[in-house]
Amino acid sequence: MQKYYAGMNKLYVIKIGGNIIDDEKKLSSFLKVFASMDDKKILVHGGGKLATKLAEKMKVEQKMIDGRRITDAETLKIVTMVYAGYVNKNIVAQLQSFECNAMGLCGVDGDMILAHKRKHPAIDFGYVGDVDTVNVPLLKNLLQQNLSLVFAPITHDMGGQLLNTNADTIAQEIAKALSHEYEVKLIYSFEKAGVLLDADDERTVINSLNPSYYKELKKEEKIFAGMIPKLDNAFAALNSGVNKVIIGKAENLGELITGRSGTTIVNE
Amino acid sequence: MQKYYAGMNKLYVIKIGGNIIDDEKKLSSFLKVFASMDDKKILVHGGGKLATKLAEKMKVEQKMIDGRRITDAETLKIVTMVYAGYVNKNIVAQLQSFECNAMGLCGVDGDMILAHKRKHPAIDFGYVGDVDTVNVPLLKNLLQQNLSLVFAPITHDMGGQLLNTNADTIAQEIAKALSHEYEVKLIYSFEKAGVLLDADDERTVINSLNPSYYKELKKEEKIFAGMIPKLDNAFAALNSGVNKVIIGKAENLGELITGRSGTTIVNE
Repeated sequence: MQKYYAGMNKLYVIKIGGNIIDDEKKLSSFLKVFASMDDKKILVHGGGKLATKLAEKMKVEQKMIDGRRITDAETLKIVTMVYAGYVNKNIVAQLQSFECNAMGLCGVDGDMILAHKRKHPAIDFGYVGDVDTVNVPLLKNLLQQNLSLVFAPITHDMGGQLLNTNADTIAQEIAKALSHEYEVKLIYSFEKAGVLLDADDERTVINSLNPSYYKELKKEEKIFAGMIPKLDNAFAALNSGVNKVIIGKAENLGELITGRSGTTIVNE
Repeated sequence: MQKYYAGMNKLYVIKIGGNIIDDEKKLSSFLKVFASMDDKKILVHGGGKLATKLAEKMKVEQKMIDGRRITDAETLKIVTMVYAGYVNKNIVAQLQSFECNAMGLCGVDGDMILAHKRKHPAIDFGYVGDVDTVNVPLLKNLLQQNLSLVFAPITHDMGGQLLNTNADTIAQEIAKALSHEYEVKLIYSFEKAGVLLDADDERTVINSLNPSYYKELKKEEKIFAGMIPKLDNAFAALNSGVNKVIIGKAENLGELITGRSGTTIVNE
């Protein structure tokens, strides 16, 4: 899809991943950079290892089927507490201290992200949500008030049920939905320096990845399997109107924004 | 203070108290009535016994000094998870299912309620906040978008610190701050039918309480001691411009709104 962004405001949708949430110092540096960004911005976070630790403390067993985590009622309670409560509000408090007026939300608030319980022919994933719609007018209104939004990956089904939802997916769905209103840059920040040719060597970052190169790398099995859903999502986001997708190290957020670090996913 | 409300929109600020949060059925009925209210509305909740239960499960000891609960770092973590996470998001999910577009917030979100750590000459209450300011423009903006707001009693100090704050106080401070913008009715709903002359007899509800009658009842020690801070706050709220304060049973929310149940606190 060819798209022109002339006259549109810039919006960054930034997913902060995995273990940076667990590292107080790294998280704080990340949030300082995020707070200093002038453009409109949305942060989407998970819960790191805190949810697992709390489950252990509460003696709630983590159920897995075929290597995939199941969200039973007790696990949903834990992720709601940790993601939408503890992590979300502490991130917002830090951003406020860095003079960034942030607002913490999850998908149920203002019906921001409506989802349905995942249907799967073989596996019951429990209270896991797949996204249906994003409330664009309300998001836009909040952004226009110069609020920076911080999303916990919890959605709802309009029937009173909260649902655990993949944070990457939330970032992608928000980015896609707002791509008609803003020039959206979607950043997946995590522990690696970007998409690597050699998963063990940070120096092998691919600077730019387009569909044909991606196809080639997949064919040669040079892409780390865990990266494939992220990249498929990235290309899907570009096809839906997102201006740019950047994948890279959370500690380099400043450089990811300016394009001096990480992997930029492009459509052609 | 004499005040005229002509031309002002009505706003209900409703505190839902104590044990109704723990009773799934009663909470659901309460929320159904709340959802059906046409006027603008804000709900303020605590966490019932869930926080205490979680603390027991996590083996976090509840510290008390002179019979007063201390919020240490671990307890703050628990109340943030339970109040701002679990309870807040489940209430919002239910309200959404009743076709009420609710948004769950706590004081840190959008810098809604700024507070400072309580200073006390003798007791260190820990991470307990006393309210300084309420963000009126943002509250007003959200209410104008027909959002019903649901507040968890967590505030912040702008230095990155979350603070546990009394839910009655939050309701009162919001009501007072918005009384210049709306005709505000503040409802304290809890397990009793209102202010009772005989704490053991629900039929002895005082329908209307003014300052001189209150003074008289306090002198005769006819007011239950636990009720006095609530009532002092109620009169303070009226003096600050709140139109009406009503105290009564959460199960009777519909009748509290119409004045057919509970105790109405009046200024003269």
